[in-house]
Amino acid sequence: MPLPCAAAGACLSPRSVGLNVAADYRFVQLDEVQTPALLLNVDALERNLARMAKLARGGGKALRPHNKTHKSPVIAKKQMALGAVGICTAKVGEAEIMVANGVADVLITSEPVPRNMDRFVALAAKAKIAATVDDAEIARELGRRAGARGIEIAILVDVNVGQERTGVDAGPDVLRLVELVFKTKGLRFAGLQGYEGHLQSRMPETERRALACAAYDRLGETKVLIEDAGIAVPTITTAGTGTARFALEHAAVNEIQPGSYCVMDSSYGAVEPSFENALFILTSVLSLNRRDALVVDAGWKAASTDSGVPKVRDHPEATYKEAGDEHGKIAGLAGTHRAGDVVWLVPSHCDTTINLYDKYILVRDDGTVEGELAIATRGKSA
Amino acid sequence: MPLPCAAAGACLSPRSVGLNVAADYRFVQLDEVQTPALLLNVDALERNLARMAKLARGGGKALRPHNKTHKSPVIAKKQMALGAVGICTAKVGEAEIMVANGVADVLITSEPVPRNMDRFVALAAKAKIAATVDDAEIARELGRRAGARGIEIAILVDVNVGQERTGVDAGPDVLRLVELVFKTKGLRFAGLQGYEGHLQSRMPETERRALACAAYDRLGETKVLIEDAGIAVPTITTAGTGTARFALEHAAVNEIQPGSYCVMDSSYGAVEPSFENALFILTSVLSLNRRDALVVDAGWKAASTDSGVPKVRDHPEATYKEAGDEHGKIAGLAGTHRAGDVVWLVPSHCDTTINLYDKYILVRDDGTVEGELAIATRGKSA
Repeated sequence: MPLPCAAAGACLSPRSVGLNVAADYRFVQLDEVQTPALLLNVDALERNLARMAKLARGGGKALRPHNKTHKSPVIAKKQMALGAVGICTAKVGEAEIMVANGVADVLITSEPVPRNMDRFVALAAKAKIAATVDDAEIARELGRRAGARGIEIAILVDVNVGQERTGVDAGPDVLRLVELVFKTKGLRFAGLQGYEGHLQSRMPETERRALACAAYDRLGETKVLIEDAGIAVPTITTAGTGTARFALEHAAVNEIQPGSYCVMDSSYGAVEPSFENALFILTSVLSLNRRDALVVDAGWKAASTDSGVPKVRDHPEATYKEAGDEHGKIAGLAGTHRAGDVVWLVPSHCDTTINLYDKYILVRDDGTVEGELAIATRGKSA
Repeated sequence: MPLPCAAAGACLSPRSVGLNVAADYRFVQLDEVQTPALLLNVDALERNLARMAKLARGGGKALRPHNKTHKSPVIAKKQMALGAVGICTAKVGEAEIMVANGVADVLITSEPVPRNMDRFVALAAKAKIAATVDDAEIARELGRRAGARGIEIAILVDVNVGQERTGVDAGPDVLRLVELVFKTKGLRFAGLQGYEGHLQSRMPETERRALACAAYDRLGETKVLIEDAGIAVPTITTAGTGTARFALEHAAVNEIQPGSYCVMDSSYGAVEPSFENALFILTSVLSLNRRDALVVDAGWKAASTDSGVPKVRDHPEATYKEAGDEHGKIAGLAGTHRAGDVVWLVPSHCDTTINLYDKYILVRDDGTVEGELAIATRGKSA
């Protein structure tokens, strides 16, 4: 029987995307997968990609998904095939890999610094690259180097909308930096970026919506300030998975950059249940010698804990506890497993968990193993 | 002027070990290193390696350093050149890379399970591999597969000495499993492993010493039980960086397996100051727009936080705070840096921080950059 999505020609199976099923790839059964392993349910992934594409289309906004989550040019190209205008990467190292693999439109959401600036410029010479800046010295230096190479780099000025991380505070200070960018040779002012990261998990939803809209209002007011000074603001880019729906309703915003929606995790699942969890850690039971817990082979090297510990799928009564680099302890399942049996975990934070692995094991809804997908920009933090 | 260690022929510079300085490697200055970067001070590393080798020699015990920290066959071979009898790896995937790179004696400290057992057996057919077990079913299955291949695998029975993770509780239950291993075709009983991981950071030192010695006493008593049953116990292997000195003084122990001493971190530095910190995260200042903090380009993808946040080197008054996948905030240094300046951080946990990077940037005591070293077993958790 053909796979449902294969029939529609939209399948992300490695066969349909021509990816990473080397001629010698031996299709394995789930019970042969070496643990700990990162499983990606490509059926759920495809439903998530289609859902966000439809939402953005319905809202009449551009969708520029953030690669910081999936770290795969294959998935990025799938997002673009579904209508995304381009992608975001956090770092120039990720953008280099995206461009090398055929993704031709990238917004790099972290500011360049002198030591990596030549790589920004070299990349911008061969693809559509936009950079973000929040510092006048950095903007001048980037312009100098781009100008020396005879190119112009698109610049989004980074605006602080309440996250208190990077970005110039919304308002008149932004205008000063925009004017500098506007008149600097080698730079082309392309708009504003304002990421309301502090709101992504804010509950209840009514509060999240209200605060997100207030952040977009600040971007809109800043845009008016800039336009009043005679400078056009082509793009206002913002939002993550937890706020994308609100950004799509706001007049000031014309581009959204969510990342996690593609695979989700237990943290985002609690705030945005309309996307499905597509990501799992497959872990083996290593030891039955503790009365109070199963000891499994997934520790800090298999599951990030910056946002809490993973949940145990299919067993809401069970709890995972970290037990070092290579071990975890699962309480609530004692007596139910043998050594070597597997347990499926749901990561607490997709981005940082994916960053621990070199590859996804691709599975279908029914658990069949479909192949592997390289996590190509893993670790490319520089 | 020749480097001091080069004169002694013991230098770990990539030139002297013939490693990873490709013909086209361009020696860079520190201000060209792309951030975030993981810096390894090879002078400090070499002093640490020499110091532990000397301690083990002085104590008359075998040293089998744990690769879980450095993740490099080059450093493993350096440890063996200094007298180590072999190395430990946590996983078979790490051991495969060690063996492929010329490390011929490996103890794999995590128990095999059926899905990875054939890899244990295949590796044991070409190098000296020891496995640990704490489960009768697993022992029988491993023996069956090793026997079918016509080889015998050395087995350390894993003993719980109070960490309450893996291992059979010290005492009569261990004897039962040892007897099973002893009589199982394909297995050769090689001794006991008991890791007192729960004591590595225990303070004050007097308490750590007393509790560690009590753990070694339990191993010694279990050894007597086994010997009374007519089975020799060739090896008792135990200890980490925080307890190695105590294990070296204890009559029951004949092998130690510390890992972190090679590079150290801020957690171990507080409990075992006789080894030097050799590991740093180089991070760039990205944003000056927050009044209370410098925003830097090292977040969860650059520094593990399972054991706390990194410390700021040279600035005891400054504190680092995590701010997402790609960002951190450093309080206490506002007004002292420009965007693009660098700050050196000291990781809180070496193993998991190293696991985030593909390579070390090798530096000397004076900060000169010497080359790069691949973190070859990074991510090989399966």
